[in-house]
Amino acid sequence: MNYSIIRWLVGWVLCIEAAFLLIPLGLNFVYGEPYAVDYLIAIAVTALPGVLMAAKKPKNTVFYAREGFVATSLSWIALSVAGALPFFISGCVPSFVDALFEVISGFTTTGASILSDVEAMPKSLLFWRSFTHWIGGMGVLVFLLALLPMAGGQSILIMRAESPGPSVGKLVPRLQRTAVYLYGIYFSITVLEIVTLLCGGLDVFSAFCISFGTAGTGGFGVLNDSFASYSTYVQVVVTVFMLAFGVNFNFYFFLLIKKFRAALAMEEVRAYLFVFLTAVALITVNLMRMGFGGFGYSLLHAAFQCSSIMTTTGFSSVDFDLWPTFSKTVLICLMFVGACAGSTGGGIKVSRILMYFKNIGLELRRLIHPRAVDVVRLDGKAVDKSTVATSNMWLLAYIAVFFSSMALISLDNFDFTTNFSAVAATLNNIGPGLNLVGPSRNFGDFSDFSKLVLMFDMLAGRLEIFPMLLLLRPATWRR
Amino acid sequence: MNYSIIRWLVGWVLCIEAAFLLIPLGLNFVYGEPYAVDYLIAIAVTALPGVLMAAKKPKNTVFYAREGFVATSLSWIALSVAGALPFFISGCVPSFVDALFEVISGFTTTGASILSDVEAMPKSLLFWRSFTHWIGGMGVLVFLLALLPMAGGQSILIMRAESPGPSVGKLVPRLQRTAVYLYGIYFSITVLEIVTLLCGGLDVFSAFCISFGTAGTGGFGVLNDSFASYSTYVQVVVTVFMLAFGVNFNFYFFLLIKKFRAALAMEEVRAYLFVFLTAVALITVNLMRMGFGGFGYSLLHAAFQCSSIMTTTGFSSVDFDLWPTFSKTVLICLMFVGACAGSTGGGIKVSRILMYFKNIGLELRRLIHPRAVDVVRLDGKAVDKSTVATSNMWLLAYIAVFFSSMALISLDNFDFTTNFSAVAATLNNIGPGLNLVGPSRNFGDFSDFSKLVLMFDMLAGRLEIFPMLLLLRPATWRR
Repeated sequence: MNYSIIRWLVGWVLCIEAAFLLIPLGLNFVYGEPYAVDYLIAIAVTALPGVLMAAKKPKNTVFYAREGFVATSLSWIALSVAGALPFFISGCVPSFVDALFEVISGFTTTGASILSDVEAMPKSLLFWRSFTHWIGGMGVLVFLLALLPMAGGQSILIMRAESPGPSVGKLVPRLQRTAVYLYGIYFSITVLEIVTLLCGGLDVFSAFCISFGTAGTGGFGVLNDSFASYSTYVQVVVTVFMLAFGVNFNFYFFLLIKKFRAALAMEEVRAYLFVFLTAVALITVNLMRMGFGGFGYSLLHAAFQCSSIMTTTGFSSVDFDLWPTFSKTVLICLMFVGACAGSTGGGIKVSRILMYFKNIGLELRRLIHPRAVDVVRLDGKAVDKSTVATSNMWLLAYIAVFFSSMALISLDNFDFTTNFSAVAATLNNIGPGLNLVGPSRNFGDFSDFSKLVLMFDMLAGRLEIFPMLLLLRPATWRR
Repeated sequence: MNYSIIRWLVGWVLCIEAAFLLIPLGLNFVYGEPYAVDYLIAIAVTALPGVLMAAKKPKNTVFYAREGFVATSLSWIALSVAGALPFFISGCVPSFVDALFEVISGFTTTGASILSDVEAMPKSLLFWRSFTHWIGGMGVLVFLLALLPMAGGQSILIMRAESPGPSVGKLVPRLQRTAVYLYGIYFSITVLEIVTLLCGGLDVFSAFCISFGTAGTGGFGVLNDSFASYSTYVQVVVTVFMLAFGVNFNFYFFLLIKKFRAALAMEEVRAYLFVFLTAVALITVNLMRMGFGGFGYSLLHAAFQCSSIMTTTGFSSVDFDLWPTFSKTVLICLMFVGACAGSTGGGIKVSRILMYFKNIGLELRRLIHPRAVDVVRLDGKAVDKSTVATSNMWLLAYIAVFFSSMALISLDNFDFTTNFSAVAATLNNIGPGLNLVGPSRNFGDFSDFSKLVLMFDMLAGRLEIFPMLLLLRPATWRR
């Protein structure tokens, strides 16, 4: 293991974060809040080790998959610990475990909160909280790649470890340019959302925070009731943008280079929209039949909630925990399906689900024609056998983490639905679950031990399980 | 598709069932019950089509995997419909859907009941109900194979479709002898249990019914409170025998031919006992800490319940729905793990779980050393790649069936825990779940539609998913 290159990368991540922390410091003055000293301490505590670690570029630049995974997981842990400092030092979140939970939830774009009164928080901190979504959505290491010229072989290993989806490719041959393109698309759509929201009469602060939460498919809001009290205009705009950020970014890249046919032919995007529309239709009918409201009301909230859950954002326009069980079950299924690979969303990812279903079909055929040789095809191309195998293994690891976490947090003796949905909501980076962690509640009731388990799940979910599991494997640390 | 050979096999299955139905008819006279005519009608309605279908041996004996799967699924459906007749004709279960549910639950060794008052049922019917467990446990087609000389290639295809586990092998080169051995072991251990229970002072009727329920890992009892009111002696004896029937029968075969070392080295059996003991320890400590009872009480009921749930039997010595959430979560995990392959138990099976965990380990290694080629080993032997692939596909299909069923039954608007555990309890052939389907409740509250879904799940669970899914696939039916 090449420790020095990992040290160097983590150092850079901390330096970037210290720079980002200047934003809430500035807002602290704009809003006349009394936390300037606290921010300065947080920045110093972040920047000092950062500069020390990043100062000396390592001589040994040997870099393998192992270094890529470990650098990524450790960067995210460092990012979270430093990001929690403003909450803790300012005293706004008195427990460091809670502050860490909140910030991990932010960076992993989960949006699960331990705050019972969001509106009581200072605005500069709320901004920082939403901004962590925006950073975490695209990935801080991808951001680093966009800035830092590195040897190509190293960068792709980092990008694979940080970016979601069964197979991570480059948009253009040079990886640095790929990272620039991705951040460019990300930035542009975010700006578009901010402008659209401002046009609807929303204040600047809310427009920014909501857009960060949407772009990263995070879910932190600035009001206690999430989205229930916003206008229909805002709800509709956010529904559309959540859906847009759940689309594979290759789609936008194809549009950008005017390959419209290739964009529209993307099987994953089509399946994503198909699942979304089916779920909206099912829930709309269910809500109407159970007397929850008329067609307009049911459609609006079904669309908002499906968009929010499927993209793993986690905003809520109503307390869907009160919905009929069928609607809640559809939402739970969406929680696991998740968004497209190569988007900012979490979950299992539509492309994996597609692959799984195609695999089942092949297997049924193979049972009857044992000698039929067939490969899974996606977008007309045969999927690499090792990608299929890794996706299967990934699901097994996912299930193992899921049930272990559920058993560990069940020591708090909350009910089964709460535990199941709490793990589903954190491991899939969604945010709210059902019952005690439903949209109108928060994660504050859990013990510190359970919070640590759920923090692990959020990180495992964002980094797609394996990088976090590798940290726990002794062989990873051998030189 | 060779329809005539399927017709012939299903016919034989019905004939055998008609013969079995003579047993409750006899008991009807022993206990002086008034249902003789009802039984005779049921026997006639079963035997008539059976004889007609089995009379003419088909000329075309071409038989492929497809015929094996379809013959198996259709036999089980025919078996269930005929088996439900005594319940329905006698009027003891007025709804045919309910009667069918009860009998499918019997044959698939699930043990989920729609009866709210078991003790009110006539004894001859209760005996038939428990006897279906015994038939279903080892499989009626395996029974047929033990009787009926068939060409070797055909039999193994049927045995594969009916017997649980990722890879079904023969104990001895001749398959008919394998079937005879299996039934011999099965019969002997059942007799041993009956005798042991009689020694404890249990009446003959209860000893037989309980032993059938244990042997098939079924779960139907003859008292309303399942096992709560039996003596500690009976509870301990049944704990041990449930555990014994969850062991891979190869283990007993090895003992029989005096290969003790091979028996004790079986990785699956060791893992099975390890999981069992760990679960018992965890629940015992949890029950004691939460003040449910002393060491003796906690250990007894933890062992009984773990043995019952892990082997997918489903007897209950206490209402474990009242236990702390951690204990319930451990039980839910056991529900999915299930018993050994090659036993009468259901669930995912210990050997699959072992394979999955070994796979995750290999994958973690492969991520770091991409060129390392490794195979999964079980009992020191490399597992065939196609077995690993099929096991993975099997899990995907299992998950797909699980979530689809949960969505479908959620239309009844019961709570999430009820629906989740109802599907888990039927698809894994266990019996009781939690909340509305907990040990002190039954499945009678569900709508007929949900009952049909759960019936499908029980059959899919017993026949290991694929045979039932193939029935739904149009291509299966093409000539």
